[in-house]
Amino acid sequence: MRPLNTIELLFTLLESRTQPIHVGGLFLFEIPENAEKDFVARHAQDMLKSKTPPAFPFNQVIENLMFWEDDENFEVNHHFRHIALPQPARIRELLHYVSMEHGRLLNKSNPMWECHIIEGIEPVSEGAPARFALYFKIHHSVLDGIAAMRLTMRSLSQSPTEKMNLPVWSLITRHRNNIETVLPKNKSFLQIAKEQVATVPHVTTELIKTVTNRKDDPFFTSTFQAPNSILNQRITASRRISTQSYDLPRFKALAKAFSVTTNDVVLAVCAGALRNYLLAQDALPEKPLIAFVPMSLRKDDSATGNQVSFVLANLGTHYPNPLRRIKTISSSMNAGKERFRRMSQAEVINYSAIAYSWAGVNLMGGIYPKKQAFNLIISNVPGSDKSLYWNGARLQALYPLSVLFNGQAMNITLASYIDKIEFGITACDDVLPHSQNLLKLIAQEIDVLEQKASELITTVN
Amino acid sequence: MRPLNTIELLFTLLESRTQPIHVGGLFLFEIPENAEKDFVARHAQDMLKSKTPPAFPFNQVIENLMFWEDDENFEVNHHFRHIALPQPARIRELLHYVSMEHGRLLNKSNPMWECHIIEGIEPVSEGAPARFALYFKIHHSVLDGIAAMRLTMRSLSQSPTEKMNLPVWSLITRHRNNIETVLPKNKSFLQIAKEQVATVPHVTTELIKTVTNRKDDPFFTSTFQAPNSILNQRITASRRISTQSYDLPRFKALAKAFSVTTNDVVLAVCAGALRNYLLAQDALPEKPLIAFVPMSLRKDDSATGNQVSFVLANLGTHYPNPLRRIKTISSSMNAGKERFRRMSQAEVINYSAIAYSWAGVNLMGGIYPKKQAFNLIISNVPGSDKSLYWNGARLQALYPLSVLFNGQAMNITLASYIDKIEFGITACDDVLPHSQNLLKLIAQEIDVLEQKASELITTVN
Repeated sequence: MRPLNTIELLFTLLESRTQPIHVGGLFLFEIPENAEKDFVARHAQDMLKSKTPPAFPFNQVIENLMFWEDDENFEVNHHFRHIALPQPARIRELLHYVSMEHGRLLNKSNPMWECHIIEGIEPVSEGAPARFALYFKIHHSVLDGIAAMRLTMRSLSQSPTEKMNLPVWSLITRHRNNIETVLPKNKSFLQIAKEQVATVPHVTTELIKTVTNRKDDPFFTSTFQAPNSILNQRITASRRISTQSYDLPRFKALAKAFSVTTNDVVLAVCAGALRNYLLAQDALPEKPLIAFVPMSLRKDDSATGNQVSFVLANLGTHYPNPLRRIKTISSSMNAGKERFRRMSQAEVINYSAIAYSWAGVNLMGGIYPKKQAFNLIISNVPGSDKSLYWNGARLQALYPLSVLFNGQAMNITLASYIDKIEFGITACDDVLPHSQNLLKLIAQEIDVLEQKASELITTVN
Repeated sequence: MRPLNTIELLFTLLESRTQPIHVGGLFLFEIPENAEKDFVARHAQDMLKSKTPPAFPFNQVIENLMFWEDDENFEVNHHFRHIALPQPARIRELLHYVSMEHGRLLNKSNPMWECHIIEGIEPVSEGAPARFALYFKIHHSVLDGIAAMRLTMRSLSQSPTEKMNLPVWSLITRHRNNIETVLPKNKSFLQIAKEQVATVPHVTTELIKTVTNRKDDPFFTSTFQAPNSILNQRITASRRISTQSYDLPRFKALAKAFSVTTNDVVLAVCAGALRNYLLAQDALPEKPLIAFVPMSLRKDDSATGNQVSFVLANLGTHYPNPLRRIKTISSSMNAGKERFRRMSQAEVINYSAIAYSWAGVNLMGGIYPKKQAFNLIISNVPGSDKSLYWNGARLQALYPLSVLFNGQAMNITLASYIDKIEFGITACDDVLPHSQNLLKLIAQEIDVLEQKASELITTVN
């Protein structure tokens, strides 16, 4: 028994029908060549019949609204579904199914996750391998999106021949040692309280600095700068998921050309696309949009950090010139990161928790619907640069799906996989119609930046 | 705003993961000849996009655990799903999907119902019409099984050419006047309280009689007689739905031959099948099983009564002789009905509510797990003697699905449709394995009774 921490409690209490608070992942697999006709059905049956209990945290259930308990009554039928898509079953229909499911509340009586195996998806082109999808959804209080994606990556295999007889929710037991650090800690209430208290002095100092330093640093982005925009409306229960894969090498080349990070290019591409999306609706704010960008805070090269904070990035959407936008983004990201370098990891996390929950209470509760700390979350979650497999089926693409809050009607989350960047856009369809248009605006913005980069090189030469 | 009544409250509070309290219906339709390839998809899309709000009671949501409110935030995506079954998609796979879904809790944050359209079901035989299914599930506190089935029957069309543009959850508005009486009443708390008080004296008298009369009437079945049996175990969350259609004329012929009602024959067939099911597991109690049989209490021929009570039927399962069983059943059913004839309808309902909730609290709360009022519910819900259609698709079969409680691990519910009796058996698969075997034992028992009937005729001649 472990008490819910502040963030977990917040995510549980603020959840409502129009604001379900779970993250998800959509994984597209290719059925191996020469596989039996019932390849998917057989593995689905194996998962249903497995006697292996779900691994932590998939076995955690909330008791009395306050405590995590190990679930003694796990019933796989409440978490797993194996269906096919009705024909025609293009990606469009898959996303429609996933959008509907992603908009539904998880039931708090159960451990809060679901796994859907979806068959019958058309191949990329005629003659290409047949496909199936896995859609996984898990409550944000159980696992954050970054940990969820990292866990999935480690649970899959890098070998096309490895047999995985465990259900996906038990797969992590295969590499337990390697994965432990990704998971929420099973700390006692006392431990948590002690850690919190120890960091208070330094965190308080930094919080004061964030206010006093504002005038000194032109690129410091505070939680008071985000303008009103149509992205920041009260949401309904309707969701639209849009996904697309883009070439990673193009992003890397742009990063090199502009001497910024790949993530800065991602933000710049989003900024340009959002600017055009808003312009088309005559809804571009005069002040720049502010993005909340979750950051991994590893100071070493270990792959096991689960230390997450965030930086507020000025997207420069008020500048028509893409070069000014990318420069603004890069500078504000650097300023944010610099602030964290002054603190220990534990301090950063507590700083973030306080700042985040402060903004969070404001936003999620809709107490000040006209005042937002930021305009949208743009989150780059861990991916894999190697091909991944599930029982020999190659992972063709993966798309992270995220949470919307009142006042936050759009979320852009992305992950890199081999040589692609995979975008998943989650939006409230009722208040932000045609959010799928952003996909083609993103593609267009990559072209624009490449054009600018080549001009830059021409000028330099 | 209307307060939940005692039964509604009971069904809401006693619900748990292992004891979801909703009823359901599985409807198998034939796709019309010459229908477009996207017949089902098109109608599913129409339902999704309909602007017609759901009709009462499908728009009722529980607020603060105590009150029914009109739902202001209806989101169709939370109630509707359109999928296909993976191949092979036989009735077996359909029942597997439905069993899994029927075992899942409805979310109390929403109006508590779901509608699933399931495509891709194999035809009865090669060349026969392609089929799709509609699975509807609704919380028992919103609608009881009898009302739910009656509502469905009236919502469908008797015409193969009628177009129905409304979603199924709004269809009842087509014949509102005709249907109003099936629905729960929108009474104020004061009205309900007044009615309750007015019936107290007579109900009390009858309750006293049910205890004092026990020795005078050999066929009076009290709530203390039901023996322990494997049907009366604590249940888990696992469900198995088994369904089968049998020829109605055979039941009617047996009723005539034995001078009993068709419902008595249904109970006798179940009794024989249950006896053999229990014998095979060496688990037949020495004392007869007692069935809880819900009864419609209409005193006139109107089709609109929603007055429901129950009779406890002695199934005579301790007798090896099927003739003694059917005689016992018929006599105990008549004794039960006789008791109700002495009371007004309002009195009967209150009598039942008190007796039922008394037994109910006992059973559902599992306070006396070793002491049960009855062994299982066998419920004959209203059907139709005419072919029914949904947008030209003929209803081929329908199966009612019911609720299990702790101590009640099996439920048999049936409905007649044209010339068939459609059985739906809901059982907890973990504690009553192979409940599907009952289907063939029922068929066998019909044969046995027909044999006995023909012997009887031979003897008489």
